[in-house]
Amino acid sequence: MRDLDAGPVTVIGLGLMGQALAGAFLRDGRPTTVWNRTEGKAGELVAQGARLAGSADEAVAASPLVVVCVSDQHAVHGLVEPLGDVLEGRVLVNLSSGTSQAARDTAEQVAKRGGAYLAGAIMAVPATIGTAQATIVYSGPKAAFDRHEPALRSLAGRTAYLGADHGLAALHEVAVLSLMWNVLNGFLHGAALLGAAGVDASAFVPLAKEGVSTVSDWLDGYARQIDEGAYPVLDSTIDTHLAAMEHVVEESEALGVDAELPRFVKALAERAVAGGRGGDGYAAMIESFRTPASA
Amino acid sequence: MRDLDAGPVTVIGLGLMGQALAGAFLRDGRPTTVWNRTEGKAGELVAQGARLAGSADEAVAASPLVVVCVSDQHAVHGLVEPLGDVLEGRVLVNLSSGTSQAARDTAEQVAKRGGAYLAGAIMAVPATIGTAQATIVYSGPKAAFDRHEPALRSLAGRTAYLGADHGLAALHEVAVLSLMWNVLNGFLHGAALLGAAGVDASAFVPLAKEGVSTVSDWLDGYARQIDEGAYPVLDSTIDTHLAAMEHVVEESEALGVDAELPRFVKALAERAVAGGRGGDGYAAMIESFRTPASA
Repeated sequence: MRDLDAGPVTVIGLGLMGQALAGAFLRDGRPTTVWNRTEGKAGELVAQGARLAGSADEAVAASPLVVVCVSDQHAVHGLVEPLGDVLEGRVLVNLSSGTSQAARDTAEQVAKRGGAYLAGAIMAVPATIGTAQATIVYSGPKAAFDRHEPALRSLAGRTAYLGADHGLAALHEVAVLSLMWNVLNGFLHGAALLGAAGVDASAFVPLAKEGVSTVSDWLDGYARQIDEGAYPVLDSTIDTHLAAMEHVVEESEALGVDAELPRFVKALAERAVAGGRGGDGYAAMIESFRTPASA
Repeated sequence: MRDLDAGPVTVIGLGLMGQALAGAFLRDGRPTTVWNRTEGKAGELVAQGARLAGSADEAVAASPLVVVCVSDQHAVHGLVEPLGDVLEGRVLVNLSSGTSQAARDTAEQVAKRGGAYLAGAIMAVPATIGTAQATIVYSGPKAAFDRHEPALRSLAGRTAYLGADHGLAALHEVAVLSLMWNVLNGFLHGAALLGAAGVDASAFVPLAKEGVSTVSDWLDGYARQIDEGAYPVLDSTIDTHLAAMEHVVEESEALGVDAELPRFVKALAERAVAGGRGGDGYAAMIESFRTPASA
């Protein structure tokens, strides 16, 4: 989708992801300036029509919208620190990974230089950038997001604004990543268990996907309960889950597979039961996650 | 789908699930005998045409296929123990939850009485029994499964035979359950994290589902790597994952949310890195799950 009033944009940081971002801007016909701390990364982009800036200052000065995608939050800090008032009146969008506190710190750092700051989190691989499959979420001043939303939509079909707190993008990113690791660990533990009984991991995939999809369908109901603070039983009580969790521990021990993960899962449920939640639905486990075990 | 040669079937155990199973047989026009240890559960089924047996022996004697769905493996043992040679030549299908060892024990117990045993695991809620959405998996003698597959298909659109080892059904069940708890815990932890920053759990659901669906799509590739024993990087290296895991721990601590789960996830990855797997893809974590941490 070509934006007819395509304003100029700048992309700083030309790793795989940065190149994908600049490429998406170029495909949408936006005048795109690029810069990277080390040389030799801009070749392909320049061939596609990008302009290579001679310095970070020059790159920032080239566009009202500056997208940064570097290795980590320290690299962002190091990039912004030496910038003078060239940031004045511009919007810096940071798509590098970091914590919510780092995002708030960078927002201050940018504000001191007269710029506005949007923190973003990319939930996509470089290959899907610029397509309907990519998701990028943003947090920070709404006015800055609104002004540049058309340009940001060049980067991801699913572009969402989360709120004014600069930390929200990073927080959503870690929440999703954390969920993804838990899914993977659950699959890998199951594959190890079945593998010990001679079953191929590939043979486990169809049932695993069904299980994942079933739980995914439950999330709306669970979320409603969490937001309402009441946990009537949707599938089974925590007590019933706990009895089955004991089986997973037993099977893991019997097959010589690591039983740490099922023991951990069981201990979480035991904590909920000890807190009087045994007769509730599983969503009541949110209470355990809200409060550190030691508290 | 009505089986024109519908042979008689028996269902023992008339809890919610047992009633759903018997109801599915009746809807397919199978002569269905039912029995429950305590009285007063058969009313609706009898109204639909089921015959209520006067004893467990009588219920077993009524059909060549006897489906048992009781509270747990102890109840199965208690049911089979007093049965005499009435089991001779019949197939007992146990759909009660239990461990793989319990399934092997029951198989022996049934064999001593001249019967054949199929262990099954229901991956469905009572409401979907008898529909295309229900999955039930079976393990035990292939001949027994083949003979009764048409009847068993009355219970679940997705009916699968896993292998001769009676323990396989229970093992697949715990592997899937374990995966499901991990998905839920990952979601609940994320919801707790975002909740501490004032974000509703319901607002997290769309991103959470996207994350879950993304990982679900990765499972085929991961499984292939596990079966081949080689873990080239598909998304990120374990080293890269580990750096991001640190952020989840930090955010959880900063927001006063339980950090046990992210610390656990991180410790698992650290173990893989310590084992020389830092440059591999995440599927290499299977090695950690295969070997107890203390080994």
